[in-house]
Amino acid sequence: METSRSVTYLKNAWYVAALSSEVGAEGLFARKLLNTPVLIYRLKNGSPVALLDRCPHRFVPLSMGLREGDDVVCKYHGLKFDCSGACNHNPHGNGHIPRAARVRTFPLVERYGFLWIWPGDAPADEAKLPDVSPLTEGHPNGVGFTYMHRKTYYELITDNVMDLSHVDHLHGEIISTRGQLTPQVPQVKETDSTVATRWEWKQTPPIFILNQFLPEPMAEARHFVEVKFMAPTTVQLQIGATQDDSALDLAHCVGQYDLHTTTPESDGTTHYFFATRRNHLVDDADYNAAKIKGMHDAFVDEDGPYVDAQYVNIGNADLLSLNPVLLSSDVGAVRARRILRSVIADEVQRAQADAADTRSAARV
Amino acid sequence: METSRSVTYLKNAWYVAALSSEVGAEGLFARKLLNTPVLIYRLKNGSPVALLDRCPHRFVPLSMGLREGDDVVCKYHGLKFDCSGACNHNPHGNGHIPRAARVRTFPLVERYGFLWIWPGDAPADEAKLPDVSPLTEGHPNGVGFTYMHRKTYYELITDNVMDLSHVDHLHGEIISTRGQLTPQVPQVKETDSTVATRWEWKQTPPIFILNQFLPEPMAEARHFVEVKFMAPTTVQLQIGATQDDSALDLAHCVGQYDLHTTTPESDGTTHYFFATRRNHLVDDADYNAAKIKGMHDAFVDEDGPYVDAQYVNIGNADLLSLNPVLLSSDVGAVRARRILRSVIADEVQRAQADAADTRSAARV
Amino acid sequence: METSRSVTYLKNAWYVAALSSEVGAEGLFARKLLNTPVLIYRLKNGSPVALLDRCPHRFVPLSMGLREGDDVVCKYHGLKFDCSGACNHNPHGNGHIPRAARVRTFPLVERYGFLWIWPGDAPADEAKLPDVSPLTEGHPNGVGFTYMHRKTYYELITDNVMDLSHVDHLHGEIISTRGQLTPQVPQVKETDSTVATRWEWKQTPPIFILNQFLPEPMAEARHFVEVKFMAPTTVQLQIGATQDDSALDLAHCVGQYDLHTTTPESDGTTHYFFATRRNHLVDDADYNAAKIKGMHDAFVDEDGPYVDAQYVNIGNADLLSLNPVLLSSDVGAVRARRILRSVIADEVQRAQADAADTRSAARV
Repeated sequence: METSRSVTYLKNAWYVAALSSEVGAEGLFARKLLNTPVLIYRLKNGSPVALLDRCPHRFVPLSMGLREGDDVVCKYHGLKFDCSGACNHNPHGNGHIPRAARVRTFPLVERYGFLWIWPGDAPADEAKLPDVSPLTEGHPNGVGFTYMHRKTYYELITDNVMDLSHVDHLHGEIISTRGQLTPQVPQVKETDSTVATRWEWKQTPPIFILNQFLPEPMAEARHFVEVKFMAPTTVQLQIGATQDDSALDLAHCVGQYDLHTTTPESDGTTHYFFATRRNHLVDDADYNAAKIKGMHDAFVDEDGPYVDAQYVNIGNADLLSLNPVLLSSDVGAVRARRILRSVIADEVQRAQADAADTRSAARV
Repeated sequence: METSRSVTYLKNAWYVAALSSEVGAEGLFARKLLNTPVLIYRLKNGSPVALLDRCPHRFVPLSMGLREGDDVVCKYHGLKFDCSGACNHNPHGNGHIPRAARVRTFPLVERYGFLWIWPGDAPADEAKLPDVSPLTEGHPNGVGFTYMHRKTYYELITDNVMDLSHVDHLHGEIISTRGQLTPQVPQVKETDSTVATRWEWKQTPPIFILNQFLPEPMAEARHFVEVKFMAPTTVQLQIGATQDDSALDLAHCVGQYDLHTTTPESDGTTHYFFATRRNHLVDDADYNAAKIKGMHDAFVDEDGPYVDAQYVNIGNADLLSLNPVLLSSDVGAVRARRILRSVIADEVQRAQADAADTRSAARV
Repeated sequence: METSRSVTYLKNAWYVAALSSEVGAEGLFARKLLNTPVLIYRLKNGSPVALLDRCPHRFVPLSMGLREGDDVVCKYHGLKFDCSGACNHNPHGNGHIPRAARVRTFPLVERYGFLWIWPGDAPADEAKLPDVSPLTEGHPNGVGFTYMHRKTYYELITDNVMDLSHVDHLHGEIISTRGQLTPQVPQVKETDSTVATRWEWKQTPPIFILNQFLPEPMAEARHFVEVKFMAPTTVQLQIGATQDDSALDLAHCVGQYDLHTTTPESDGTTHYFFATRRNHLVDDADYNAAKIKGMHDAFVDEDGPYVDAQYVNIGNADLLSLNPVLLSSDVGAVRARRILRSVIADEVQRAQADAADTRSAARV
């Protein structure tokens, strides 16, 4: 029976709020994340902070206010808040600061070229930050970052990356495996909060994003691609090719490491963040700019219309309740959906247990 | 008491899905009909087919895919479907075709210059296709077709055509009866699924869309107009004038045969299809083009704003529950609404009876 | 606990429907007020009338029809209505006028440069019209009027005017009190349906909208500002400055009298009407035009984005249920909200009592 999809998000988890480069030294940056308005800005020492973007007095966005050193002044009536969310100046009446004059803050960590936010009430746990360290290891011209806004549901973007067989159908020659990928049942590795799928194959000529960096651009090469989902919304992708006997990994192949991660904006719109690090031509700034532009455009022009149209056709139904045909390539995407459901169910259950404990304690 | 209008559509009936001319030999044509995405295309032999526009794998529109002979390939992951909706190629894994890899099809008939679709589950019954054969009898330059999209509810368009007295008020001189039509109580002929209303009158000069084709363009002529509603959404209109003693019908008068038919797109938007066949100047292609353009523009510029504004004012209330004033001219429109309700109620009741039978049978 | 805001409007009260200048001698003026489509036009003698903008026949807006003397003809089917809402011509059938062929009218009074409408069912009570007579006392070049449409909830506009301390923060130098206003707890005067708050202060130089009209433009002056809320949606504001010992009122100071009044259009959009009368340079038409334009632009460019953004952040929650921080300057706005709630609650209770009486009477 058709059921509605859950719009319960995992709250106690890290989501990308912004690219590091989106939040400058001076400004007030506003973005809605998980249906919540968030203000992000950098202290004078460069550290970024995140506050609820809503003055507790009249609820206007603080992002429409002013910076004053490390503080933010609400432009409507002049309440000033420090970066801990505490009001430290009230120009009204006798200047007394009401206890309620406090803005919620969110844990925010800058790492790997992104600002990661923790929207939940549980203590933020940095150990849960996805390890995407390969992004920031290497020459700065060897990595590019981009941001896209999509009118679709975030799980459909995860699906798209987890099921890589679409590269043979949706995209053009440049990343085609010439049909090598689709017939394979990928290898799967799964944990409680991650699932990785891996394909290996040979093709002649090698995949066009890599072949020019191989010794014999038009000769056969061995390839691998591996995608790994890390709940709730991050997928890392490694792809490489070699023409010798090396191991099929990025230490030994010509290849790249991509990061796809999404953050729900509202129930039907999604922030999509992407980064790519390559291990060849790593100091070429022009190539780097062209590479990230090309990948950005491919998502916007090729994947984007499909994930948006899926959402139109699926609406708010739960995808799996519609009994979709499952193909061998879907194993990663389906397991990723199950993991996400499971971690959300755990979080909901834990919240209910905590509430029950609180009630028991109150009765004692 | 104000009640909401029904958004239950008659399902086991023919609706126009498209003009024949809208669906070319090569392309994939997409249109939402009764809230359902539909793909229409022509086989190599020219026959049109209709499928649910939703791949059963990941639910992207098949209309965003590719033609391959008489088949359609989903561009997202390469599943191929024949025109019966069966998957006949799965490039994934071992190529096994899952039983669920099947797309719903819809009966589709091309007749009278339109593609007619049957959205219901009961067997399609060609005998129920409205007979609008006069459209296709005669010189090809004597008939024109057009399509309009309206932000209104389909019954309001039916009302507009069924109550012809509006021609004396809403439209300009060109189709005015100079007040002859409005005072008349039309003659009515009704069956279970149709109602026709007819007006006859004299006017001097004759109606301007016809007078130039009469022997004495500025002298008195006898006129008739007859509209016939055929449930659920089709209205044929015949209008003619004569200056001799002939019978008042299109065999003997200078006149034209118009077809108005609508198909709900969503609950508040409607596809409006129109065609007109005349019995004069039938081989003049330039006149034909100007004629259909003129009628198209009249609907868009004159009727359109009124039927749209009605919908804004009525919203989702049931029109009759708002106790509208009923005028003598409304008889056809009101009976058409009652017939439509009655056939919808019959269909709903039949579906419930079938469901009960199925449950009884299961218990035996 | 967060609760939804009431979308019950006070019905038996005067609201501004339009500026007098918006409704010309000839045309049919349409505006949605309190979710109701309203037609306003002027009789040949200039008196304005208000009718439900919905023909009782097919519910098209009468404002899409035609004037015929003091009557309005529905353009769809020609029913004609006089200014009392009675149908006085039916061109259909035998011309009999159905009893139901009647359009609801609304009491409408033209006063103080506005057209005031009474949307409720109780008899309109002119004594309840807010007295804003200072607007129309004096030279015609000493007063200006303007209209703005806002995507926000009307109470947020009332709040904005009632809490004047925002002038020191939101607006520019031209109306800054240089921080004199914000620290003050205003004086309050309250009745059942009004609340006034008043601030008095000294500043050097005087406020820039007035200083050029004082004897010594850069020397200290005594100032006052007083805002008075009159339920449901009107706020008058008086501001003045003097450099002698005169009383702090508009009879003795250089100053101006402003009127802010709103009318809900739909539940999330508001008509905002504003007028300003000054007691200096009263015959200067150019200054007058520049003054009203400047104030209009200040609302649109400065206040407008904040009251709209508040609405985005608050949504349909009741503001007070969100436990906003209350500052000393909020006293007027908070009391105005309580008065509005109280008069709405009274009206709802009275309506329920009347309904109970009617039921008892029916049983006797």
